[in-house]
Amino acid sequence: MAQINENYLKLQAGYLFPEIGRRVAAYQKNHPEAKIIRMGIGDVIKPLVPSVIKAFHEGVDEMSKTESFRGYGPEQGYDFLRNAIVEHDYQTRGVNLHSDEIFISDGSKCDSGNILEIFGPDNKVAIQDPAYPVYVDSTVMGGRTGNIQDNGFYQGIRYMPCTATNQFMPEIPTGKVDIIFLCYPNNPTGTTASKDELKKWVEYALKNKAIILFDAAYEAFISEKDVPHSIYEIEGARKVAIEFRSFSKTAGFTGTRCAFTVVPKELMGYTSEGKAYSVHALWYRRQTTKFNQVSYPVQKAAAAIYTPEGRKETREIIEYYMENARIMRESFTELGFEVFGGINAPYVWINSGTGMKSWDLFDKILDEAHVVGTPGSGFGPSGEGYFRFSAFASRENVLEAMNRIRNLSL
Amino acid sequence: MAQINENYLKLQAGYLFPEIGRRVAAYQKNHPEAKIIRMGIGDVIKPLVPSVIKAFHEGVDEMSKTESFRGYGPEQGYDFLRNAIVEHDYQTRGVNLHSDEIFISDGSKCDSGNILEIFGPDNKVAIQDPAYPVYVDSTVMGGRTGNIQDNGFYQGIRYMPCTATNQFMPEIPTGKVDIIFLCYPNNPTGTTASKDELKKWVEYALKNKAIILFDAAYEAFISEKDVPHSIYEIEGARKVAIEFRSFSKTAGFTGTRCAFTVVPKELMGYTSEGKAYSVHALWYRRQTTKFNQVSYPVQKAAAAIYTPEGRKETREIIEYYMENARIMRESFTELGFEVFGGINAPYVWINSGTGMKSWDLFDKILDEAHVVGTPGSGFGPSGEGYFRFSAFASRENVLEAMNRIRNLSL
Repeated sequence: MAQINENYLKLQAGYLFPEIGRRVAAYQKNHPEAKIIRMGIGDVIKPLVPSVIKAFHEGVDEMSKTESFRGYGPEQGYDFLRNAIVEHDYQTRGVNLHSDEIFISDGSKCDSGNILEIFGPDNKVAIQDPAYPVYVDSTVMGGRTGNIQDNGFYQGIRYMPCTATNQFMPEIPTGKVDIIFLCYPNNPTGTTASKDELKKWVEYALKNKAIILFDAAYEAFISEKDVPHSIYEIEGARKVAIEFRSFSKTAGFTGTRCAFTVVPKELMGYTSEGKAYSVHALWYRRQTTKFNQVSYPVQKAAAAIYTPEGRKETREIIEYYMENARIMRESFTELGFEVFGGINAPYVWINSGTGMKSWDLFDKILDEAHVVGTPGSGFGPSGEGYFRFSAFASRENVLEAMNRIRNLSL
Repeated sequence: MAQINENYLKLQAGYLFPEIGRRVAAYQKNHPEAKIIRMGIGDVIKPLVPSVIKAFHEGVDEMSKTESFRGYGPEQGYDFLRNAIVEHDYQTRGVNLHSDEIFISDGSKCDSGNILEIFGPDNKVAIQDPAYPVYVDSTVMGGRTGNIQDNGFYQGIRYMPCTATNQFMPEIPTGKVDIIFLCYPNNPTGTTASKDELKKWVEYALKNKAIILFDAAYEAFISEKDVPHSIYEIEGARKVAIEFRSFSKTAGFTGTRCAFTVVPKELMGYTSEGKAYSVHALWYRRQTTKFNQVSYPVQKAAAAIYTPEGRKETREIIEYYMENARIMRESFTELGFEVFGGINAPYVWINSGTGMKSWDLFDKILDEAHVVGTPGSGFGPSGEGYFRFSAFASRENVLEAMNRIRNLSL
């Protein structure tokens, strides 16, 4: 009898975004005349930039000729892309990585979901609350939790509440924690961590032989000078941190698929008897056994992001989205909301201040303004009362949405 | 203290293909003048066909304009591709699938490696021996085995020897087996299973509530009329089988990355208490949590394989490779080798008949003929004495390699 992984039965029925989709579809069906503006799921709307398109076409052309055709590629991705990453994303910020420490992949969702596989079942996992749902769900799937409780928390996960009370910066755990998910600039709250704050986490991890899984998918949206772009800007982080980066939001690759994960060679995990092993070697083994690299033309397209034109073109798009964020920030502030994020991240995190619950606000805004956001409680219990708006929309839609919301009675 | 997944420590040091690469690189370094012909790893050499290239470019162009840009795609892949698969790969052979049962992915390696994740740890896994190494390695990584033994077998796996003695068709297990990997047309032996033989496996699985993981990555190379292309040609298979298919070899997508997995809605797995759950729902949850679909232009390119021109063009390439296989079959037969495969699969599986071990033959052929094949023992202990040659090479190289080998003293 083939037995299923019963941990999956602990998962809550719906992933957040399909549930939003279901509610919006039902509303649209009953109100076919409503012109719904979608600012819920963080999906980009601007096309790939010209230099990326040019390189993408060139990659396809190479695949059409025997002499330039590419079959299976290098196991961690092509050097031309890994070298560009090392040079432009890290060396420019004083961080020295070797290109062998970069693993090209088809998405940070995949990598941050799969990474727990190389760690043992008994690790205590700490997760910010609210957070990108993949961290919790993959922890549950891997059997590292008990059941979900009435308060919305799974037994066994160390939740780290991030609310206005602590400026969305969780406290350093007092007890034993082995694996720590941190996301900065943060999804969903749009907030950042200073170098001093990250330093505390690196120190904690060094002291406790813990590992930080640092999700920096929104790094490109940082506008303030002192905000760290990489965990490796903190001394000692190479010994304790894995970093996830993505081209999805940075360069509009949500439908093109390319990302990367950094696993420094010094990073060690331990056997139950305390013997140290290279985490890089484990991830290399995992990826070479269960993954087969990213499409060659896609890697070629991604490398074009790092050319002078590519950098300029993607920068303009990021600025476009961040101007949306600015407009949203101002509109909600005028309306009397508490407003966070939107300065170093493409998300604005709001609280009506009226005590209204997230899904109630979702339904109200959908019903009265025909605008879709994301209920904060969908990212975890501590998101209750909050609401996320994504800046990935056209200017026209952002202005129209803000106009409609301005007329809401809250 | 972050603990590693100690099951990884049970894995043997090197994945087969990197080890081949290492030996070839070392040989080339010491013999820079040697013109080495590579027929080891099963990687294609022919470029993508014109209709695929055309669709690929069109997909890229769509990504360059706001009105046709695509962000996150549908969770199981685009309908245009899933519908083409259902129509051309299945309906033409009398198999009715719903497009909802197709999950587009970036590779069969990924899917066949990840699939065990949705099953419990206590399942007994049966694997053909020899086999594609991913089945064994992912079973080990998931903690379903003990250590490897001196005879090359991991404790806990039910190995099913496939040798000339049983015509490479394993016997139906006598004891309890829950999950069964079957690969036909077989990699590495190039042999096939008849409908009657597959029927026995489906009956076994139905009777024992077991699940068959059927790898049909080489289905397009079948030339004989009565050989089944899909496990679903067998009555009842929808209740017990998952099927993996790939465009890697069929259409030269090893560096382009697109494949699919079929999970019928009737397929059930069980809790430890015997309650039935939909395996489709589990895989859907796994894929939507830890995967984010295949690049849109790649899916568009893959769909072009199913157009009349695409079918004609890819068929010509398959015939080119299969003519290579025919030449290899004849050459080795003339040399007095036992020869298998190469009629319905792009692999020729040979045995020198001299009792020479696989790696010794590998070294001899590399040293004396400068030709690289794959030692059969690399696919499992029962592959010892055998050797695999891949038909994915240029005609010129195949003829030259056969000429050189003809002069070997064996």
